[in-house]
This record gives sequence, C-alpha cells and structure tokens, in this order.
Amino acid sequence: MELLKQRIRKDGTVKGNDVLKVDSFLNHQMDVALFEEIGKEFKRLYEGCGVNKILTIEASGIGIACVTAQSFHCPVVFAKKSQSKNIDGAVYATKVQSFTHGKIYDVIVSKKFLGPEDKVLIIDDFLANGAALEGLIDLVRQAGATLVGAGIVVEKAFQPGGDRLRAQGIRVESLARVKSMSEETGVVFVDD
Amino acid sequence: MELLKQRIRKDGTVKGNDVLKVDSFLNHQMDVALFEEIGKEFKRLYEGCGVNKILTIEASGIGIACVTAQSFHCPVVFAKKSQSKNIDGAVYATKVQSFTHGKIYDVIVSKKFLGPEDKVLIIDDFLANGAALEGLIDLVRQAGATLVGAGIVVEKAFQPGGDRLRAQGIRVESLARVKSMSEETGVVFVDD
Repeated sequence: MELLKQRIRKDGTVKGNDVLKVDSFLNHQMDVALFEEIGKEFKRLYEGCGVNKILTIEASGIGIACVTAQSFHCPVVFAKKSQSKNIDGAVYATKVQSFTHGKIYDVIVSKKFLGPEDKVLIIDDFLANGAALEGLIDLVRQAGATLVGAGIVVEKAFQPGGDRLRAQGIRVESLARVKSMSEETGVVFVDD
Repeated sequence: MELLKQRIRKDGTVKGNDVLKVDSFLNHQMDVALFEEIGKEFKRLYEGCGVNKILTIEASGIGIACVTAQSFHCPVVFAKKSQSKNIDGAVYATKVQSFTHGKIYDVIVSKKFLGPEDKVLIIDDFLANGAALEGLIDLVRQAGATLVGAGIVVEKAFQPGGDRLRAQGIRVESLARVKSMSEETGVVFVDD
C-alpha cells in the first residue's frame, strides 16, 4: 500500500535494527483518515470472503480494527490480555509472549462472541515473530470458527512470523512489508 | 441518546448493584455501526468547540474514540496504562486507580502528542468514580493543552465522578446516565 509506505518513510523512525516506531500515526497517536484507507485496502483484499467478524488484540489493534469493520459492516471482538472480573468465566484462553515487553501473558475472548458461525478476519498493527497472531488463531480454532485470514498493517518480513504462518496455509496480507531497516539507511520494503 | 439507551435495555446485563455489562456491543465485542451514531452525537454536542485532538485511555475507549474522530477529522491519542520500552522517555504521567481491577497503575502519554496547541475532547466508554477521567484531565493540564470537555458513553450517575467533575466547571456529556440498577429491576436512566 503505497500511501502507507510513504507515511512510514516520512514519519517512522528506526531504533537499532529491529524497532520501528510509528507512534505518531499508528499506535499511540492514531491518524484515523489513514485508518480509513487501510480499512478500504483490507476490504479490497478480503472482498467476497464472507467475513462476518473482525478479531484483534488490545490495545493498538483496536482502532484499526474498528475503522476496518466499517467497510465490512461487521462487529469487532478484541482479545483481552488478562483476566478481568468483568469477563464471565466462559472464555477461550491462550498464552502469548510479547516481543515488546518480553513477558508471557494470558489472552482471552468470551465464548459468547466467537463461535462456529463466525468467518473471522484477524487485524493487527504489527507482525514480527507472529506470537500475537498465533495466539489469536488459536482462539479462532478453539471457537470452531473459520479463519479467513489476517490483515496486518506493518510486517517485519525479516522476522519469521509471517512466512511461518503462510507456510501453514494461512492467508496473511500485510500492507507494508519491511525487508530491512537501520538507523542509518531507514526502512527498506520487500517490494522496493 | 435514545438509541443507546434502548440498546442498553435490550443487551446490557446488571450484576449486583454496580456492574453493568455491555460487553456484547461496547467494550469486548464492539458494534461499530452504533459507534458511528455515538460519534455523530459527540460531534453534535461539541460542534464549533475547535476540537483538534481526541484523548482516550486503553483499551476499551480506543474504538469509540477512533470512530468519533472521523466526525471531528482529528487524530486520536490513547493514554497507555504502563511504561513500554517502545515509548520514549519524554512522557506525561499520572496515576489512576481502576474501579474494575482495584489496583493503581501508571498512565502515560508521550509529550510529542499533546501540547499547548491542542483543544482536547476526552472520550471514554464509562464514567463511575471518575478516576480514569481525572487522570486524563491531569495529562491534558500537564501538557498545557485546552480541555474542551469529556464525552462519555455510559455514566453511572449514582457514583460521584460525573457530578464532582461538573462541580469543578468541567463539561461532561454522557450519552446514557444510569440513575440506578439492580438484577431485579434492570437499568433506570436519569431522564426516564
């Protein structure tokens, strides 16, 4: 998605060789006009696939998922990162190791909101090692729902998550695939 | 907002006398078509106030804030609940006690995304004791930004947060104000 890659080149900053900060428009401050274009692109990619639910994970996926859901005219469910007393006992649960924070946390979705009738598109802002995405896929499978695919905004294609999941036959569409990056050279995309 | 109150009556469930579960459409599964109507109502209420930034707090405020921001044509910033290594050192920080979880946590916003030029509308899903909202107001003041007001989806008007903040001269607009609730009688709104 050219608009997104231009924005990453303009406003993204690289720290070391593996941290890409896009917090001015994607995951701390959020440019919802850009999100609308991202949502339309996911709709174009997954048109006709029967998506009737979007699944994401708190927190930074939620805004993108909600704006994308406007194009699909379907609800969003976001997976929660720890047990809250406001969640009923009946949940699907899995464990995810965070790339950003290092720690392992529980991820849950209420059984009320995911089931065999759902055709699920998973939306997230980043894909790197694939841990969060694998956790969400596990929740979809536990629910007996159909996984249509994943829509990712930024994939670090030099990390193994995306290719490992594609090798399993899972459809993963990433709008910007980063081939390499460094503080000196900035970001290079796979299709540059 | 009549559409919202009807939805709460239909799909909300009361636990004890103080927990209102609206997780089927507001804060776990999210009905983005309803969010669009909520966003339009906040726009109607705060039309002409010069809002150029929406501030919310992770996680359940983010979806509502993003869809509302489409009506205001402005970015969203969401306050984060703990220090992440992906946040630069330069942050505004405050402490908030969670009604849902009981514990006290740090809430931060990068100084890059909130400043004296901002006219801020705070958006959140719930207002009860007002702790989260007071934390967000503190961040706005630390930034030297102008607080236009708060847009709340559901206010538990039998808890003190909303009235205490209004008594301080802060504009708080809540789309559904719950006067009382119980498992037996369901939800009674202030203007029923």
